[in-house]
Amino acid sequence: MTAIPMRSDPVILTERLIDCPSVTPATGSVFDTLAAMVEPLGFAVHRFIEGEAPDGPVENLLAIRQGPAGSRHFAFAGHLDVVPPGQGWTSAPFSAERRGELLYGRGAVDMKGAIAAFVAALAEIPQDAGTISLVITGDEEGPARFGTVALIERMRAMGALPDLCLVGEPTSVHRLGDMMKIGRRGSVNIWLTVDGAQGHVAYPHLADNPIPRLVAMLGELDALVLDEGSDWFQASNLEITDIEVGNPATNVIPAQARARLSIRFNDLHTGQSLTDTVSAIAARHGGTARAVISGESFITLPGAFSTLIAQAVEAETGVSPELSTTGGTSDARFLRALCPVVEFGLCNATMHKKDEAVAIDDLHTLARIYRRIALSALSAPELA
Amino acid sequence: MTAIPMRSDPVILTERLIDCPSVTPATGSVFDTLAAMVEPLGFAVHRFIEGEAPDGPVENLLAIRQGPAGSRHFAFAGHLDVVPPGQGWTSAPFSAERRGELLYGRGAVDMKGAIAAFVAALAEIPQDAGTISLVITGDEEGPARFGTVALIERMRAMGALPDLCLVGEPTSVHRLGDMMKIGRRGSVNIWLTVDGAQGHVAYPHLADNPIPRLVAMLGELDALVLDEGSDWFQASNLEITDIEVGNPATNVIPAQARARLSIRFNDLHTGQSLTDTVSAIAARHGGTARAVISGESFITLPGAFSTLIAQAVEAETGVSPELSTTGGTSDARFLRALCPVVEFGLCNATMHKKDEAVAIDDLHTLARIYRRIALSALSAPELA
Repeated sequence: MTAIPMRSDPVILTERLIDCPSVTPATGSVFDTLAAMVEPLGFAVHRFIEGEAPDGPVENLLAIRQGPAGSRHFAFAGHLDVVPPGQGWTSAPFSAERRGELLYGRGAVDMKGAIAAFVAALAEIPQDAGTISLVITGDEEGPARFGTVALIERMRAMGALPDLCLVGEPTSVHRLGDMMKIGRRGSVNIWLTVDGAQGHVAYPHLADNPIPRLVAMLGELDALVLDEGSDWFQASNLEITDIEVGNPATNVIPAQARARLSIRFNDLHTGQSLTDTVSAIAARHGGTARAVISGESFITLPGAFSTLIAQAVEAETGVSPELSTTGGTSDARFLRALCPVVEFGLCNATMHKKDEAVAIDDLHTLARIYRRIALSALSAPELA
Repeated sequence: MTAIPMRSDPVILTERLIDCPSVTPATGSVFDTLAAMVEPLGFAVHRFIEGEAPDGPVENLLAIRQGPAGSRHFAFAGHLDVVPPGQGWTSAPFSAERRGELLYGRGAVDMKGAIAAFVAALAEIPQDAGTISLVITGDEEGPARFGTVALIERMRAMGALPDLCLVGEPTSVHRLGDMMKIGRRGSVNIWLTVDGAQGHVAYPHLADNPIPRLVAMLGELDALVLDEGSDWFQASNLEITDIEVGNPATNVIPAQARARLSIRFNDLHTGQSLTDTVSAIAARHGGTARAVISGESFITLPGAFSTLIAQAVEAETGVSPELSTTGGTSDARFLRALCPVVEFGLCNATMHKKDEAVAIDDLHTLARIYRRIALSALSAPELA
């Protein structure tokens, strides 16, 4: 094995990113560090801060290396913010530490390791292969209102729209390469309210208890079968995530009762169609519904792009990745508006947990996979 | 109409008691004022403070005027504490004010007015008529743990047990005299808990949402028909008074869900039988129930004592009182352990509300009714 130059060693690059604390929303030094990595590789770095409190300000970074005129544009998207470390770590969460085969630190797999692997891959992709961009936000783990959405606006304004996009989220489950994501379910949160009239429990005929109506409404909602799955998606799912009355007095019938639902849904629904369904049930029980749609479902149908990624994964790992649409949402829900989007990255077993860690070998393998993907995406004739 | 001496004018006495602020738990000046009213009438006053935080300390007053040896003992029971005044009063709640036919102030009907009426009546009951006691607590509106319960213990310790007891709670509804209470429903509060396992809403198979089980449990409890009433009681009633999950995160399935019931029940149940019924339903849905029984139902069956009271009411008002067991609980639930207990007092329309007020005429009429009741109770041969 030949010596790896520091700037193309994904382990060292991951360590440098982990060493910059960047709990969501991330700003400052972690972006300085990434900019210093890609500028020597010929990238023009655009950094900008967007939004106001409470969902901002948010820092974003768009790095572009222009290929020959008329060449294809491949984008790698991701985020430098991380979820809070929580308690109980064996080593400091923002001080990368190698122990045995693993590298520990917050963001190791979600997703500083993947960004480092892509930067390492870049060192071995010639500039004339095509246009490459890094689309990196400091707010994917938070409200995500001024992150990737703002980056997309900036790309539109610059006329720098990618032809294909890879999101480096940790999609692998048991071993690197076993799963990629070609779509995601949609997500909607719905707040339910039932109003009644307060009174004394000893005189219920003078009051109107809203709780029995909320209970009946929730019983009906919980029994709802939204679908049984579709071609590329699992069945849609409704969870009641909260109920709140907040009545401290044992002898008082409360005036209002509230609940909250979270629905993760497939391509047989839209956020609006589900809001309408829930609102109708709420109304039948004398309640109201207010919805916030976090994202619609989307899919990049299996084809040349997903095949190219699967081949790159298989070449480096021997594993044929499953094409999945499971799990939570990601910023791919925004990027899909620009071009075909697929997600592939490290193993997600330790993400958002204490002692988050990445296998050092996986960082090297992922850098090689990303190099193959970028080169194929920029050149494959079947994508033209 | 002859001039009324000040110490037997129930309006002046009510004003003096209202002018002593006594939000529950009451202590100090309001008891000083009452003691100063009854000591000149030949009563021995025993005051004592009972209990520790959080349900104490509580002040209580027991005043006894001994009749001839072997004479009957009639007790008048009540409370000097009042509920908080709240906002929006036309005049200061703790500064009695006459406006037109009404006297305004917190406690006017619940129940400083009734205590004043009884004191006024005492001035016209000769000492040789029999033994009379006032059993007055400073905590009827609060937890009531160290109030009338402690007074009963004190009476037992002194060997001063009444033969009959009248509680001066405001039992009249539309006009003075239209209702007396010969019993009360029991009351039990039950806390329900369902445990699950926390998780991410995108991966419900890795979590166990406790809310659907709580909703099904509450649906079954809400549909329960406990009974259809009994000879002297209305139907028992179950109210769901609170639900609490307390989950701030829209994407998290919570680990626990809780609810609270209040059951007001008649003589077909006990607190324990209802606790058993609810616990069995809770268990079927994987939950648990914890009960606090505030009081069992009780009844003083219609007979000589209630007839004597009805006759006194009718003689002064021309109204024949309905014998009822409706409404909330009162300290009669404790006193019933000593002797037959009946409740009769002022109109309850304004109790616990802003601008609580008593009709000035009603105070005079009630003093005359109480005088008749006390004299009959001490002398009627059919009660022997």
